[in-house]
Amino acid sequence: MNLTNHQFRLAARPMGMPKRSDWNYAEEPVREPGNGELLVKVLQISLDPAMRGWMNATRSYVPPVGIGEVMRALGAGRVIESKNPNFAVGDHVYGMLGVQEYALSNGQGVGKVDPRLAPLQKYLSVLGMPGMTAYFGLLDTGAPQPGNTVVISAASGAVGSVVGQIAKIKGCRAVGIAGGPQKCQYITRELGFDAAVDYKGEDVGVALRKSCPQGIDIYFDNVGGEILDTVLTQINLGARIVICGGISQYNNTTPVKGPSNYLSLLINRATMRGMLVTDFMDNYPQAAREMAGWMAAGKLKSREDLVDGLQNFPEALNKLFTGENFGKLILRVAEA
Amino acid sequence: MNLTNHQFRLAARPMGMPKRSDWNYAEEPVREPGNGELLVKVLQISLDPAMRGWMNATRSYVPPVGIGEVMRALGAGRVIESKNPNFAVGDHVYGMLGVQEYALSNGQGVGKVDPRLAPLQKYLSVLGMPGMTAYFGLLDTGAPQPGNTVVISAASGAVGSVVGQIAKIKGCRAVGIAGGPQKCQYITRELGFDAAVDYKGEDVGVALRKSCPQGIDIYFDNVGGEILDTVLTQINLGARIVICGGISQYNNTTPVKGPSNYLSLLINRATMRGMLVTDFMDNYPQAAREMAGWMAAGKLKSREDLVDGLQNFPEALNKLFTGENFGKLILRVAEA
Repeated sequence: MNLTNHQFRLAARPMGMPKRSDWNYAEEPVREPGNGELLVKVLQISLDPAMRGWMNATRSYVPPVGIGEVMRALGAGRVIESKNPNFAVGDHVYGMLGVQEYALSNGQGVGKVDPRLAPLQKYLSVLGMPGMTAYFGLLDTGAPQPGNTVVISAASGAVGSVVGQIAKIKGCRAVGIAGGPQKCQYITRELGFDAAVDYKGEDVGVALRKSCPQGIDIYFDNVGGEILDTVLTQINLGARIVICGGISQYNNTTPVKGPSNYLSLLINRATMRGMLVTDFMDNYPQAAREMAGWMAAGKLKSREDLVDGLQNFPEALNKLFTGENFGKLILRVAEA
Repeated sequence: MNLTNHQFRLAARPMGMPKRSDWNYAEEPVREPGNGELLVKVLQISLDPAMRGWMNATRSYVPPVGIGEVMRALGAGRVIESKNPNFAVGDHVYGMLGVQEYALSNGQGVGKVDPRLAPLQKYLSVLGMPGMTAYFGLLDTGAPQPGNTVVISAASGAVGSVVGQIAKIKGCRAVGIAGGPQKCQYITRELGFDAAVDYKGEDVGVALRKSCPQGIDIYFDNVGGEILDTVLTQINLGARIVICGGISQYNNTTPVKGPSNYLSLLINRATMRGMLVTDFMDNYPQAAREMAGWMAAGKLKSREDLVDGLQNFPEALNKLFTGENFGKLILRVAEA
């Protein structure tokens, strides 16, 4: 074996939107796997909003990525060498593989996936972390009842698109907020949302009032900022606000905009609750089975936005924050 | 009967702190009670932070007080005439009597109280709306577990002082935030809180970190603003934040300060939930019995801050917002 690994390592903690100079594109020889280890050729890297948080120095639900370390990322790949009895050469796997071409692993946190059942990118999308986030965030934290009006921000994204479709499956009215007519048409015409609000093209408050004549029972929030504040003025008694993310605030160089209208929680005896998908890990298999059933029945669709080439990682990641991606953003490092 | 009623009517919607000119001190003859009505001589008027919200034009959980209307307020008084079979002359009653000397009522929302069991002001304090707010806000919305650390803002106030004492009864660590050494000593020495933080005299973040070495499991918030934001940085996994009030923001002339650190809810899978005491009305009798038992056992104390004279209403009310009151603020209109 004489392989060279290319990697993106964190060079500096970004101020605001990450810049190319915050990354170090490094090269090193691939080490032989030791006893119990496996070597994975990374095929696809999942680009997720949460990665921006991992780049900050502040401790969050996971420690920050250290300066000089390979950037943390979920990914999928193929085992090319194994000294771990649980994995064989040729297996396809999924896990925290990092932003690099080859990943050594001791097998912990790595699971097998079957590309014959679904294309690899689905395991980073609807059948992976974003899909699980949508499933548990809506069904557990949001607790939808038939007839509820569910509003979803970043509604054409990896998580939001699944939330809206599950809301429909559960008999709710699904209203998505997305940027631009193309994404809005996608969620209503392709995914079956009842209505879409184009936050780039219309007044969100006015449009929501029109789309949610019965008020808002559940708000699944991926963005925070002004949109969260606007939604708070239209929630119903006992509403549930699921805080899944706050992407509009992740690159702030000024303090995060807190929801000025949070006292609407008091007026409406409403709940705002944070959720993190890993808390539901024990129930992933059951959820994946149910979601696969919905997919087979044509009730659950997903769209992936694949960008080719490891070297394009910095620009690709930033598409999440400008809203340029359309569907689950994935960096394709190799074909097979 | 030839009685004259003095009243405070809302003259203008205040911008910021209410001014004397926002009130109209009016005088009118007392009308004879009609069939089914009773006439109450108001003895004590409860001054509560929520009253500030009722003065705004925006609809909240109750409609705003109209311009020209008698200001809405809870109060206690004595029946001096009755054409309602449920009330007799001499009965003491409690209800929304308004900021005035005499109140006519059809009996709805008015309940009898017994001044031989407890002084009248206790029915506006620990045995009344503030006490019920504390009881249900902590026990239902906060869901305390033995060993939890409970932080309470406005901790020497009508609600906060009761929250802390119930937290202690339930085996929690109670840490109160109050303004000035006198209030801080009161809650620790008189009421048995484990620690007090003087927000006027010390850095709240530093002091909380010292008082809550195990982090914060429950935050009972009466104030909002900077203190809410500071607490959010110190909450534990699964923490519950009870939004009972936001008095620091009630007189804002600029937008309400939303909690910039609300994404801590996500990191800690924590819940922020609004509560309103009237939702628990069906369970008041059971709560009052339990609280009376704690009072009899010396485990639950309360302090009232009585201001004399109806004409002092405007200045007395504002003491709530400057923090000048010490204990449940009550305007005493007549002795008996």
